[in-house]
Amino acid sequence: MSDDARATIGLTGLATMGRNLARNIARNGHTIAVHNRTTAKMTALVDEFGDEGDFVGCESLEDLVAAIERPRAILVMVKAGEATDAVVDELVPLLDEGDIVVDAGNAHYRDTLRRQEALEEKGLHFVGMGVSGGEEGALHGPSIMVGGSDHAFEVLQPVVESIAAVVDGTPCSAHIGSDGAGHFVKMVHNGIEYADMQLIAESYDLLRSVLGLEPTEIADVFDEWNGGDLESFLIEMTAVVLRHTDAETGKPFVDVVRDAAEQKGTGRWTVQDALDLGVPITGIAEATFARSLSGHTEQRAAAREVFSTTPESADVDRDTFVDQVRAALYASKVVAYAQGFDQIAAGAEEHGWDIDLGEVATIWRGGCIIRAQFLDRIREAYSDEPDLTTLLTTPYFAHAVTDGADAWREVVVAAVRGGVPTPAFSSSLAYFDGLRRDRLPAALIQALRDDFGAHTYERVDRDGTFHTRWAEEGKPEEQVEE
Amino acid sequence: MSDDARATIGLTGLATMGRNLARNIARNGHTIAVHNRTTAKMTALVDEFGDEGDFVGCESLEDLVAAIERPRAILVMVKAGEATDAVVDELVPLLDEGDIVVDAGNAHYRDTLRRQEALEEKGLHFVGMGVSGGEEGALHGPSIMVGGSDHAFEVLQPVVESIAAVVDGTPCSAHIGSDGAGHFVKMVHNGIEYADMQLIAESYDLLRSVLGLEPTEIADVFDEWNGGDLESFLIEMTAVVLRHTDAETGKPFVDVVRDAAEQKGTGRWTVQDALDLGVPITGIAEATFARSLSGHTEQRAAAREVFSTTPESADVDRDTFVDQVRAALYASKVVAYAQGFDQIAAGAEEHGWDIDLGEVATIWRGGCIIRAQFLDRIREAYSDEPDLTTLLTTPYFAHAVTDGADAWREVVVAAVRGGVPTPAFSSSLAYFDGLRRDRLPAALIQALRDDFGAHTYERVDRDGTFHTRWAEEGKPEEQVEE
Repeated sequence: MSDDARATIGLTGLATMGRNLARNIARNGHTIAVHNRTTAKMTALVDEFGDEGDFVGCESLEDLVAAIERPRAILVMVKAGEATDAVVDELVPLLDEGDIVVDAGNAHYRDTLRRQEALEEKGLHFVGMGVSGGEEGALHGPSIMVGGSDHAFEVLQPVVESIAAVVDGTPCSAHIGSDGAGHFVKMVHNGIEYADMQLIAESYDLLRSVLGLEPTEIADVFDEWNGGDLESFLIEMTAVVLRHTDAETGKPFVDVVRDAAEQKGTGRWTVQDALDLGVPITGIAEATFARSLSGHTEQRAAAREVFSTTPESADVDRDTFVDQVRAALYASKVVAYAQGFDQIAAGAEEHGWDIDLGEVATIWRGGCIIRAQFLDRIREAYSDEPDLTTLLTTPYFAHAVTDGADAWREVVVAAVRGGVPTPAFSSSLAYFDGLRRDRLPAALIQALRDDFGAHTYERVDRDGTFHTRWAEEGKPEEQVEE
Repeated sequence: MSDDARATIGLTGLATMGRNLARNIARNGHTIAVHNRTTAKMTALVDEFGDEGDFVGCESLEDLVAAIERPRAILVMVKAGEATDAVVDELVPLLDEGDIVVDAGNAHYRDTLRRQEALEEKGLHFVGMGVSGGEEGALHGPSIMVGGSDHAFEVLQPVVESIAAVVDGTPCSAHIGSDGAGHFVKMVHNGIEYADMQLIAESYDLLRSVLGLEPTEIADVFDEWNGGDLESFLIEMTAVVLRHTDAETGKPFVDVVRDAAEQKGTGRWTVQDALDLGVPITGIAEATFARSLSGHTEQRAAAREVFSTTPESADVDRDTFVDQVRAALYASKVVAYAQGFDQIAAGAEEHGWDIDLGEVATIWRGGCIIRAQFLDRIREAYSDEPDLTTLLTTPYFAHAVTDGADAWREVVVAAVRGGVPTPAFSSSLAYFDGLRRDRLPAALIQALRDDFGAHTYERVDRDGTFHTRWAEEGKPEEQVEE
């Protein structure tokens, strides 16, 4: 059998994402062995797209393994969770030392850590590979975040770099760090995507509610914004979606879609992880909760019945307000990204990953959903100062936020007065004001915690941890150093 | 040995909380067997407080077990986590069928589920008992949330009811539900406590920054508020803390405490759990993140250096603003509690607990940190309508929120304009505006998700799940029902 081993790489699981990745690999000149539990999907792929490159169709995992050059690299593109575990378990006994199993699905990075450990014990390599860009990205060039060993990355690198998106001659792929690092960074990417979309949704809502613009007019605004600092895939797509008319009813498409946003879990994972790491990612949290809220149909109906809707349109100048919303969107976006990059830095420290934050920004410039002009500015910031404390204070972003601050405040004021919910705008502004504030009322919280729970406090004027026993029943007050 | 078994209950772990609970039990006429790994702590307790009641000092766990009447009930008051597991493991072989192990510490309810399952297999009962009220509460009467079997509750009930706080003749203790229900409700209690304290901190900050009041003047305001709807332990304590002068420096105490709020984890757990349940608890989340932010000393220093602080005092009428802040605090508090009770309802459904939400409000009226007048209103709301969709729409709370809405908006506007961070006020208002809104921009998010990720959408005008394939390369647009 080993004489037949002529494929550079293998892939099992030919649903949409797997099929598109396989085609992308083949189109870029690599021989790829393909397998699917239901063989028909495999033969359909080879029949339909066989002329795009060199596919080796395999009817069993044994055939798949036999078809690949050693050290073998096999992409597993099945459902996250039990399905992935099942395929990995089936593959392991067929493999040889040094072989590499790649999970390119949306696994939680903790599952990746667990799988990596299990395979390492058997002399195999497990790679958690974050792939962003949806179905289209998988076919035409995604952003690829690779976790795992140096050996594994060396083997995968030629394929990965050839299939990734390219920006300014640089492939949007990188070896992020060992074991779970790739899936971790992919998770935070998705969290940032939640914040990005929520901020866009709030901008749209304000333009529509406060100014009374129609979806197509708002599409024009987004198109205009896409020519400036906000240039990005999501801003561009928003214009496309807002301009779209529902073929069935002739109404604006956005008006026929039910307003209950769903989620597949990565926003939730990101926030849960940030809570463990102690990193305030308020923008992502509010975006995640805003989706939950939208889905609580019964509560919303009850609330609508009881609370009258306040008048929302306000007497503001159209062009001024549009520009204020743009500035608020940009400033809030800067905050959301600063928070997300904080989380990556904290995760890297927690898990011992040597993550180059500038490189993360670099490979997000293309292929992925949050691809944007803006990421070049983040890349530059980290290249100027790799151990940056927060993105917010770098000259470019500090300038953007300071410049936009007044507009940002006016937009939130308009939203608050008009009854338009802007949780992400508001919380990003509160974060900014909190971070730059001289004294926070957290001091009061600590004093209260010491009072009723003896949780101790620190003093501003000297080191140490203190507890105050309040005066009572004739006993004088006493401050104890703990 | 069994002839000596004369104690009603046993307790191991005599740190402050354990010692105070033991004294509370003894003071209420129950014979209690006490044990501590370091025997000196046990003898010290009996020496110092032996005249308060009937203590049976035990030098080993074997002695402890032997001293208790069957079915035995033993409170484990050691550190959450491994220490608890170690003591439980040591106890189990000493116990007989029907005996009850009680964890009255701050365990995560998932650990309680796990321990309950393990002990059930051995014919034993495990009780996760949430005890709120800090050291003082443990001694003088806490609020007690009991999870576990009916058998276990029957055995524990006389002791639990006699040591709990009492309000209007009703003990602040209840059998919340099976296995982890008690610790789950205690967790949400603590989450609500985070929100409560953050809202108080924001109120204090506004009165100080916008009006320029001194801490003692703000103490007067809180004292006044404590005479109305806001009457509660935390409002009362805030006045005490704000009036307090640091003995060392003569400065207001709140000004010598370092403004970095710490946390012991239950706020974080609450938010992580709410994310799994899909319940937006934005007030608790913002409060938890505000604490994290306050502790990021290095980032705060960098931000202070770069961003000038905008002038904060505003030209507002003192009495008007004080009253607006009161209304904003009350409305935001209503939202935080509504969210917390939503989470309890969702948790009950998820885990199959039959939780009486009105009873939860009832037993939080005394003993615990968030005890408040206000909880009587929540008790009434659930007694009028046990399957309430949201607390917000009940007549009393709807009225409070509607009445306060204008003030609430003006306070957030003052904060936003003045650069005072009020993340919990802002997010609670955004939640209220989101819930009562006719159409949310979540529709745009769903449309985008379908566009780039084929995640499908629902329509407002008919049932089904749809995906739109956009027109491209000469192919017409197509809406597919999935």
